[in-house]
This record gives sequence, C-alpha cells and structure tokens, in this order.
Amino acid sequence: MTRATREAIAQLSERFGDKLSTVASVRRHHASGVTSHMTIAPDAVLFAASTQDVVDAVTICHHYRCPVVPFGTGTSTEGQISAEQGGLTIDLSGMDRILRVSPSDLDCTVEAGVTRKALNAALRDTGLFFPIDPGADASIGGMASTRASGTNAVRYGTMREFVTSLRVVLADGQLIDTGTRARKSSAGYDLTRLFVGAEGTLGVVTEVTLRLAPIPERIGAAVCTFPTVEAAVSAVVTAIQSAIPLARAELLDALQVEACNHYSKLDLAVQPTLFLEFHGTHQAVDEQVSLMSAITAEFGGSAFRWATAPEDRTKLWQARHDVWWAALALRPGSQGIPTDVCVPISELPGVIAQTRQDVVELNLIAPLCGHVGDGNFHLCVLVDPEDEGEKRRIAELNARMIARAHAVGGTCTGEHGIGTGKMDYLVAERGAGMMTLAALKRALDPRNVMNPGKILRVDDYQPYA
Amino acid sequence: MTRATREAIAQLSERFGDKLSTVASVRRHHASGVTSHMTIAPDAVLFAASTQDVVDAVTICHHYRCPVVPFGTGTSTEGQISAEQGGLTIDLSGMDRILRVSPSDLDCTVEAGVTRKALNAALRDTGLFFPIDPGADASIGGMASTRASGTNAVRYGTMREFVTSLRVVLADGQLIDTGTRARKSSAGYDLTRLFVGAEGTLGVVTEVTLRLAPIPERIGAAVCTFPTVEAAVSAVVTAIQSAIPLARAELLDALQVEACNHYSKLDLAVQPTLFLEFHGTHQAVDEQVSLMSAITAEFGGSAFRWATAPEDRTKLWQARHDVWWAALALRPGSQGIPTDVCVPISELPGVIAQTRQDVVELNLIAPLCGHVGDGNFHLCVLVDPEDEGEKRRIAELNARMIARAHAVGGTCTGEHGIGTGKMDYLVAERGAGMMTLAALKRALDPRNVMNPGKILRVDDYQPYA
Repeated sequence: MTRATREAIAQLSERFGDKLSTVASVRRHHASGVTSHMTIAPDAVLFAASTQDVVDAVTICHHYRCPVVPFGTGTSTEGQISAEQGGLTIDLSGMDRILRVSPSDLDCTVEAGVTRKALNAALRDTGLFFPIDPGADASIGGMASTRASGTNAVRYGTMREFVTSLRVVLADGQLIDTGTRARKSSAGYDLTRLFVGAEGTLGVVTEVTLRLAPIPERIGAAVCTFPTVEAAVSAVVTAIQSAIPLARAELLDALQVEACNHYSKLDLAVQPTLFLEFHGTHQAVDEQVSLMSAITAEFGGSAFRWATAPEDRTKLWQARHDVWWAALALRPGSQGIPTDVCVPISELPGVIAQTRQDVVELNLIAPLCGHVGDGNFHLCVLVDPEDEGEKRRIAELNARMIARAHAVGGTCTGEHGIGTGKMDYLVAERGAGMMTLAALKRALDPRNVMNPGKILRVDDYQPYA
Repeated sequence: MTRATREAIAQLSERFGDKLSTVASVRRHHASGVTSHMTIAPDAVLFAASTQDVVDAVTICHHYRCPVVPFGTGTSTEGQISAEQGGLTIDLSGMDRILRVSPSDLDCTVEAGVTRKALNAALRDTGLFFPIDPGADASIGGMASTRASGTNAVRYGTMREFVTSLRVVLADGQLIDTGTRARKSSAGYDLTRLFVGAEGTLGVVTEVTLRLAPIPERIGAAVCTFPTVEAAVSAVVTAIQSAIPLARAELLDALQVEACNHYSKLDLAVQPTLFLEFHGTHQAVDEQVSLMSAITAEFGGSAFRWATAPEDRTKLWQARHDVWWAALALRPGSQGIPTDVCVPISELPGVIAQTRQDVVELNLIAPLCGHVGDGNFHLCVLVDPEDEGEKRRIAELNARMIARAHAVGGTCTGEHGIGTGKMDYLVAERGAGMMTLAALKRALDPRNVMNPGKILRVDDYQPYA
C-alpha cells in the first residue's frame, strides 16, 4: 500500500466508520467474480449507501491520488473489478432503491446497485419491463458501465439505447447529470453515451435513468434444431434481412445443447439449436412465426417446439442463462474463458465456421452460444487451470477470432468490454483513435484515479497540442 | 482577418489553387442558409473533393491557428455555419460519393456531402432505405453533426442510433475512424456518439457508416383531424404508451394546416391535424390502423383520410416538409424563427397548451408542428425583421418554452442543436456538466480551431486538475 493510499484510507475510515472494511476476505471477494483474469484485491472496500457517500469518498481519494474501483455485482468478465493499483473499491450494491417509475413516459430512475431482476420485479404491475438481459443478474450501474446487452438486443437494443441519463461522480468528486429525460436531444456533446461503456474509468455512476418497454401482449418462445451451425446462423441472418422483428435469436451448438440437457434437465435433440422468441400482439406474433418458420425450413430447420406455458418459457431461458455453468460442468474442475467478437451479420456464418475449425485444430473444448441476430457470439472455452499449454492455445484461439473479426469490420468485444483483458486488442481495433481515447481519459481524470489500468494505458499516449 | 489567417489562406491557396475561393459572394453564401441568427462570413471557402483535401486543409489551419468551419448544405438553424472568428469554411458538398452499400448487412458508407435524398435514390433497388428525415435535404455529414432526426424518429430513431462509425479529421489533421461496422460493441469509449452532435467543434466528419432499414412491405399514410391540439397530442401519447409502432405521427395546428392548404394546394379541414404513417406487413399495418383508429376516436378524432396512391402520399409528406415555407407565406416579407423543445411525452399536452397561451399573450403569429411521438415540437414564429419589439417578444417566448421544458425534465433542443443560438440555454440545461463539455473540447481541440464559438465558450471553464 502506498503512503498516499494509507492516508486516504485513514481519512475514509474517519468519515465512514463501519461502512469501510479492510478485512482481507472482504477485499478479496471484491476482486473475485466470474472473470478468469488475474485480479488484485483493493486495500479497502466502501459499502456506499448514497450518492453523497460516493461524492465524499471520491473527493478524499482524489485528494490523495488513491485509485477508485466501482463494484456492482462482480459479474464482469474482463477483469474490470481488479484493483490494479490497489486503492478503494466502492461497492454500490447497497444503493438499490428504485427512485422513480413513470409508466406514462415509459421510463424510470434507479440507483446504480439495483439489479435487472429486481427492477423487473418492481415493474411487474406497470405493464412495462426492462429488456436488456445479459444473463447474469448484473447491477444496472455495472450494465451501463460495460455497455451490456444480451439476448434481447436484436429487437430492443443495448444499454447505449436504453440509458437516457446518468448521475456520475467525476474523478474530482463533482457530481453531474449527463442528460435529461427527453427521448432525444441535440444539446451538446453526448455525455450519456460517453459514460456508458467507460467501465468506471471516467467516473462512478450512482443513478441511472432508463427507458422501459411495454410488455408485449403475447410472447412466443420456441426451439428449432438445424443440421449445422452454419444453417442456423444463416436462417437468423435471413430473418434480419427480411425485417422479421425477432425478440430473441440465440444459437447453441450441439455441445452446448448437450451441456444444457445435463445441467438444466432439458431433453433437447443434441444438434445446433436456435432458441427463438417473438413479441407482439397475438396477430403479429402469428405472422412473425409463420414468416420465420418458412425461413428456418428453407435452411433445414426442424418444426418449432413451443414453450407455451410461462413456466416452460422460464425454464428454457433459465437454461440459456445458465449456459456458462452448464459448459463448466462438462469438465469438472475446469474454468471458463469467454470470447466475445461481434461482426457484420453477413460475415457471421464464415467467421463461426473458421472459428470452429480453430477449436478442433487447437484441441480445445469450447461450446458455442451466440446472439446471432447482432453478429455476436461467444465460446465458453474450458481450461484446466494447471495446464499452461492449454492456456496458450486458448490465447491463440482468442487472438485468431479477434483478428478475423477485425478483418471483416467487426469488434473485439460485443458486450463484455475491455477491462484488463483486451487492452492490446483495443489498440489493434482503434489504431490512431487510441490517442483520442487517452485524451478523453486525461481530460476527465488527470490524476488517473478512476479505475486505473483498465481499457487503456493512458501514459502510452501524448496529449494533443 | 488576422495575420495568422492570412498566412494560412496563402498556404491553402498554394495547395488547393482553384478549389479555394475568397470571392465575397461565395464567402457570404457559406454563412447563409435557413438560420435566422446573425452570421459572419469566412475569409475563404475550400471546396473539398476528398478526405485527403480535408486532412491537408485542417493541418494547415491547425498550424496557423486558423478557424475551420465545416459546411454541408447550410440547412442548420442555430447559426452552426457562421464563421464567428473568420477563417476557413470547408464545403463538403462535393464529397458526394456513395462508397459502399451492403444490402446483406443493412449498412452503407457514404462521403459526408451525400444528401439524404441522394442516398435514398441510390438505395432504390436494394429494398432498403435510410429513414432519418429532418425535412430539408441535408447532407449526411451535417445530419450526423447536429444529431438530426425528424418525422420517422418515433419508429426508427435518430442519427445517434443510425451512425455506426465516422471518419473524422481531428483538429490537428489526424484521421481516425470512430467505430467499426459491428451492430454493437463494448470496445472502449463511444467516439461515434461523441462526434455525432458535436456540430463540427471536435473535428470534420468526412465519411459516415450508416445502418439502413428494410423498406416495409406496406406503407399506410392517413390524415386525422381533432377538435383541439391537446386531443391530438393525447392520442399520440396514448398510442406510444400502447406500444403501437407508429412510423410517423406529425401534428399540425389549425394555423399550420391553413398555411399548408394555401402553400401546398391541399384541401384539409382547418383543424388540429395528425399526419400518420404505418409501416409493416399488410397484416401488421391493418392491425396498427385498427388499434390507432380506436384511440383517435376516443379523443374525438375524425375518420382517417387515406393517402393511398404513392403520389398522394408524396404530396402529403412534401406538404409536411414544406411547413416552414408555408408558414412564412402566411405573412409575406416575414422571417421565421424555429423553436425546438423536447419533453417527456406525458408532459407534452401541458407544455403545448401553456405555449399556445404564451403565443396569444405575446401577440405573435406562430404555427405549430411537431414530432409528437418523441415529445418534440416546433413553432415557426413569424417575425417582421424591422420590428425590434416583436423580436424581443419572440425571445421571451422561446425563453419561456425552454424554461418550461427544463422544469419537466426536457431539453432546449430536440434536433436542431446549439450552434450560436442556444449557448446560454445549454448552460442552463447542463449546469456543472458544462465543465465536462469544456474539458472534452479542450482535450480534442486545444487550439480551439474547430468551429470555434459554437456550443460552448470554452474559455469560461477551468480544466479539471
């Protein structure tokens, strides 16, 4: 611990008393989570109860140049919660109040620690829901900070589209609102979109104003199997090109289906499979289904197997959300390393085919799932933590996938973010734009106290002159 | 002209020859347009033919600290094209090539000077269209720079949602791409959204990658009249809350309808009127119309009068696009001053009612039209250019509208931008956030050469420390 950090913690302790913890297990817990990256524990953890707590803590940390790491639920996958330079982790999970719901405006304001499931539970009687669904029950603040998306993004969009304003504590402790409640605005630089996806490196999000969507009159969920992964992907790409407003179009390869059958007690045919969902009026859903089944049949898809009862639908999507745990159970004792490229949809069948060849060639176990309507897919690559050779082969696989994504105009991460894990890939993706990213970081956080060592190494770049 | 600007122009002249003009009429033309604000002509105009031209010009201007003002079609309304500190205007209208259309990915890349009508003409055989429609045939680069939207935004979104990447010449002449062609990405700060809406103050946009939408199988356009403006607005708000995917929902008050009848040779009933459009399959449009007509009837709306033939539809929307000219024709010799607030939709009926009272009280002529599904509406306030008292009353009207919008969580501009005209209102809207805006401006344009004197007065703010 640096002397400055020690002084900061002393002052934080005086201000916050029991809300501040330096207990080793608490510190360690806040550097853990689903990430497979090496993480470093912070020197102290603050359990913040209000925006004012965050303002006070950040002001103290700024004064002493003590690093600040925001923490929601620990479900980020690229090392975003690691305290790379020690310092203070601010745990926002206690800031879990829903501050306002306006059914007539289809929007709400929540504290950053509210989770998406808690929000949807609270919305139950309003006829509205919050559609962004990354699988994990992440916090809304964390989802904003990683620009999360997930299964519904093909129809509804991502956090980029759903956040209308953020309350943010800046690096020096100043508090700003990034936008208004208007559905659109041309009033100056888009600060909301700048902080969405900034992974806590520009400030700490404490409140989020979100758009909401009306719960559709009817939801139809179905499973459809295909002879090949490529056929399943091509069916979805064709549907998108035909303007069928799919609400969800999730691909699982045969290995992932097998894993889900075991883990989630399903009895699906062990073949490449799409989990589909249709939202709309009764009539609109009927029409979407009829158009979609014509397309899937064209690509050799099976008849739709319907999950009609709400409990069957819940079971199906719970299984989809549990793909990660199902995959890990394929090889007990293994860890999982997720990949996350996103490419123009016409490139998706080719990119997936080449990736599957790589998996075979590199002798890896890597079930595949994907938000194929967005051009985004994941492998859950299983790794024996003791096997350095396997780790190297996995790194090679990831590097090939990302290089291939970049070659066809895609991105190294569709929804997981950069964290510590993808900083070099970001450099490859952004090129000369890295200097712009560094200029923004330096302008808003000149002391480099906000989640330092994530997204970019700011000292590698000169300011513009 | 400053000495530095004179030196810059000498060097630009050497580099560009005939592409550079210092002719008074050319300079004056590039500070004109539809804006009613006082504007200042640049010292020279460059007709850029390529991104390289822009790189070279900006590099020279940066060296000499000569201001640079980007120019598309001159249709911005808040003085964005005024050369406040003289310098060089870069006219991008010659950069009008469509570089790539990928029907299978529903996207394209165009040079900044391509206009939206030219783009849609070029897309005609692809089954796709570019739905953002601000009325004027603006350039795509200009639309990106003002975060434009318009009649289709209620269904399709704004430039914020449709731009996936920009090629931008930064203040020092460096060239960057702000994103990739992926439909979503979590790879670092969202530079695309930072430059969308920056009004040329952070760099010059030279190429734009855009999403496109499939042309719907059926388009239904109808007109519906109401007893009051408030009834018409409430019908649209109810439709939005009921998740009816209206493609367009444009309100005209009785005075505006009268103006359009004269100007566009229509024979509409002189009453508050909605121009509605429905997009979808045949079946989906039928269902939307049936749901919507039940709602409009509830609010006293008339039977729908259909514009079935494509030429009738074109005539209807041409009339909508000509509301500005129609309004001006109400009082020959007058100029028009557009207002542009946007509020949460539940607040819209109240805000419009109070605004209409203000118009009466202040003794002004101000037909109203609005993208009411977004909470966005405009007055076209007619002004006698010689009448200083009227000008003061119009300023008072605008100030009241914006204060009212701010009081209910809205914004001072839904789609026109800040330019020179709304800088003080932006300060009122952003509060402490202005310092963040200034920090971004200073970081990316430390010499303040990019469209200086627009959006914000950067010298009013200290950098973060």
